[in-house]
Amino acid sequence: MAGKVLIADDVATNRIVLKVKLGAACYRPLLAADGASCLALARAEVPDLILLDLMLPDMSGIEVLHRLRSDPLTHEIPVVIVSTSKDPEVRLQALDAGADDYLAKPMDDPVLMARLRSLLRLKDGTGEIAVRGAALRALGLAEDGEGFDGPGTIALVASRAETAMRWRKDLQPLMADRLVFLTREEALDETAPLADIFLVEGDLGGPGGGLRLMSELRSRAGTRHAAVCIVRGELQGEAAAMAFDLGANDLLGTEFDPREARIRLRNLMLRKRRADRQRATLQNGLRLAVVDPLTGLYNRRYAGAHLAAVAERTQTTGGRFAVMVIDLDRFKTVNDRWGHGAGDAVLVDVARRLHANLRPGDLLARIGGEEFLVALPDVHRPEEAQAIAERLRQAIEEKPVPLPAGGTLGVTVSIGLAFSGKGDPRRLEPVAEVINRADSALLMAKSGGRNQVTIGQSAAA
Amino acid sequence: MAGKVLIADDVATNRIVLKVKLGAACYRPLLAADGASCLALARAEVPDLILLDLMLPDMSGIEVLHRLRSDPLTHEIPVVIVSTSKDPEVRLQALDAGADDYLAKPMDDPVLMARLRSLLRLKDGTGEIAVRGAALRALGLAEDGEGFDGPGTIALVASRAETAMRWRKDLQPLMADRLVFLTREEALDETAPLADIFLVEGDLGGPGGGLRLMSELRSRAGTRHAAVCIVRGELQGEAAAMAFDLGANDLLGTEFDPREARIRLRNLMLRKRRADRQRATLQNGLRLAVVDPLTGLYNRRYAGAHLAAVAERTQTTGGRFAVMVIDLDRFKTVNDRWGHGAGDAVLVDVARRLHANLRPGDLLARIGGEEFLVALPDVHRPEEAQAIAERLRQAIEEKPVPLPAGGTLGVTVSIGLAFSGKGDPRRLEPVAEVINRADSALLMAKSGGRNQVTIGQSAAA
Repeated sequence: MAGKVLIADDVATNRIVLKVKLGAACYRPLLAADGASCLALARAEVPDLILLDLMLPDMSGIEVLHRLRSDPLTHEIPVVIVSTSKDPEVRLQALDAGADDYLAKPMDDPVLMARLRSLLRLKDGTGEIAVRGAALRALGLAEDGEGFDGPGTIALVASRAETAMRWRKDLQPLMADRLVFLTREEALDETAPLADIFLVEGDLGGPGGGLRLMSELRSRAGTRHAAVCIVRGELQGEAAAMAFDLGANDLLGTEFDPREARIRLRNLMLRKRRADRQRATLQNGLRLAVVDPLTGLYNRRYAGAHLAAVAERTQTTGGRFAVMVIDLDRFKTVNDRWGHGAGDAVLVDVARRLHANLRPGDLLARIGGEEFLVALPDVHRPEEAQAIAERLRQAIEEKPVPLPAGGTLGVTVSIGLAFSGKGDPRRLEPVAEVINRADSALLMAKSGGRNQVTIGQSAAA
Repeated sequence: MAGKVLIADDVATNRIVLKVKLGAACYRPLLAADGASCLALARAEVPDLILLDLMLPDMSGIEVLHRLRSDPLTHEIPVVIVSTSKDPEVRLQALDAGADDYLAKPMDDPVLMARLRSLLRLKDGTGEIAVRGAALRALGLAEDGEGFDGPGTIALVASRAETAMRWRKDLQPLMADRLVFLTREEALDETAPLADIFLVEGDLGGPGGGLRLMSELRSRAGTRHAAVCIVRGELQGEAAAMAFDLGANDLLGTEFDPREARIRLRNLMLRKRRADRQRATLQNGLRLAVVDPLTGLYNRRYAGAHLAAVAERTQTTGGRFAVMVIDLDRFKTVNDRWGHGAGDAVLVDVARRLHANLRPGDLLARIGGEEFLVALPDVHRPEEAQAIAERLRQAIEEKPVPLPAGGTLGVTVSIGLAFSGKGDPRRLEPVAEVINRADSALLMAKSGGRNQVTIGQSAAA
């Protein structure tokens, strides 16, 4: 679990100095003396972070970076370039190739360490919920697709309007993203345009004001996942390091080179969107766990939990709820005679019609091959539920289902309806008993000739 | 999305002062002048946080707190008690009733604001993946069950051994949790005992050293979700506020009252475990989305994604993979004649036997009612895959399945086997084509008399 950090540098003393520093900070250092072994180690060990020198004997650091970024196994590993070169062009080239940062040697230790902490902390944007590989893919959202997103929004937050205007003047010609001016108050206003990135003056409205704004942004649901880039005079030393520890995703100097700022902001945007996609994948995966893929209705798993919650709520209000079990009549013959394609079309169409004839708070779930469950919370009069059941039955009977291969097929449903016992605060009737009564009523509807609604025994109570 | 903060105070000027402060910080303040309206607003608005005065006209703040904590709708809302009382017993009582903090009036603004930010940020321990109510329940882990966890582990990290020993001497008699001494290095060591809470001296090894350790802990996967309580001399002012912004869950003074420390640590433990459970629920929910509930095998959704990944990997290595589609022979008669219970028992037993006869890297999934899919990556010789298929077929045939109602039932499977085209780097054969070949082979196995393995057309290639 400890951070594995791969150090790639051709000079043995450099490797050793970094190894000692990282070891003291309790990271697990891995060492590579050339590009080929760096790539091999990166694939074999998948380190949490790579510190990459630009001058390697067999290939340039930029080349290594390109190869890391094009390999699915390594393309998300954060890479920090460490280099003696002060040439701004080299710096731009490294950032443009996807480096997460570029630190010039000799490095400032507090900033280096805070940078590592920051990258390691932010590496996983989904709160450590682990979904990898095929599972991620199965949960429905592609891992790739970077770059075809439209322009994003970058909020510029500075003490003086002239500062923000200079930022925009410098940056807007270089990028398609929307650059909007926000005051501190507007940045925290829930109705303000949602920004992907906040570019914030570190001393906004006073020393450290930008850092406090960042902490505020991190505590609000709407802005928690935005990237924050702090603009400050000094990029070295304890105070700069503190900005990373407080949650900054990147730092820029007050007199930043617009070309470098453009690349850094683009990298932040890409990473922010990747994290957004990962969260969306998780959210979608959780949805898939409670939904029937064919009809899009809730599945049996969800129905059980929902009914339990309905029963508990009914208990506290002293009311009652109703449950229907709905079964398609003679569905087996549909499948046998017309094929599974026709059977699926019938299920989808029936689901749609049932849904259209229920109220917003009602639950509709597919709990078996041709079996649906409906829960009606807060039933005031049994006749009300009975009328809904009858409406559902008619909605299926009234017109035939169009089949994918052409033609139509008339189908009907049988419905068993049952009511919970009157809410008695001292006794919570098990939900299973109500479902059992609905099931028995369904059997009676079937044996009574199908295409009818039958009410479970204790409904008269 | 902006933080809704409910202020409950019977003195109008107090409410107004807080309202102005919170408004300036861009929170949305809600006001209540007594306990009943506080409870009603809490239920109606479910605010993100409650600032609760202890002296209310109709009931005590403690009573309000108890009621908030016993209502499922409000029991997770963070509550900060604000009070003029300096009586340590009142303070203990409030914390013991589940207050997240107790701030004595007049309040220190930087700490109040940082405390709010911290509680709002930490409120959701699952990276904002929203699962609520029935869905959470459906995904398999109870929301309740607090308190029946065994003792936890609290790591004591101080500069001098005597300090940590004093902490333990004071605290151990009051709690069942394990109190262990760790140095900074041990706290970051992946092999050290996993702590639920780190109690850390703020100036560990030098000014702010404990805060840096906290940032390190937050950046490591193994300790990211631990609670951190910082021990420092001064609990007011900008520096104390900074500790919250850097991620502290709570602060204690260097001369802390052991009884108060015990309650604060217990509260941290409860909250940490609740967040652990929420993460586990999400993880479990994602598992459910890719698993067949009856057999525990992967489902069709996962199988498709997994096969796509196998195909891509095979492409880069230039090898080939094999796919089997396995169908239970005459399964419909099992269900019809012996009932669904018997059918399910057969499916579970067959799944178990298939699984036992595959290699660790092979995929086994249930892709339909009585249909399974096997993917064999890296097939070097077709005979190898054929031998595995034959082994599977025999494993099912060789002994009958015990039925739940007693007795046994002999079952057999038919298997269609197909191979991917030889990996041609210029052409990625669609996975669907390989599956189609396996499907056709399965049909031949069925029409050839069942209980046999048939190989798809292009296998000879």
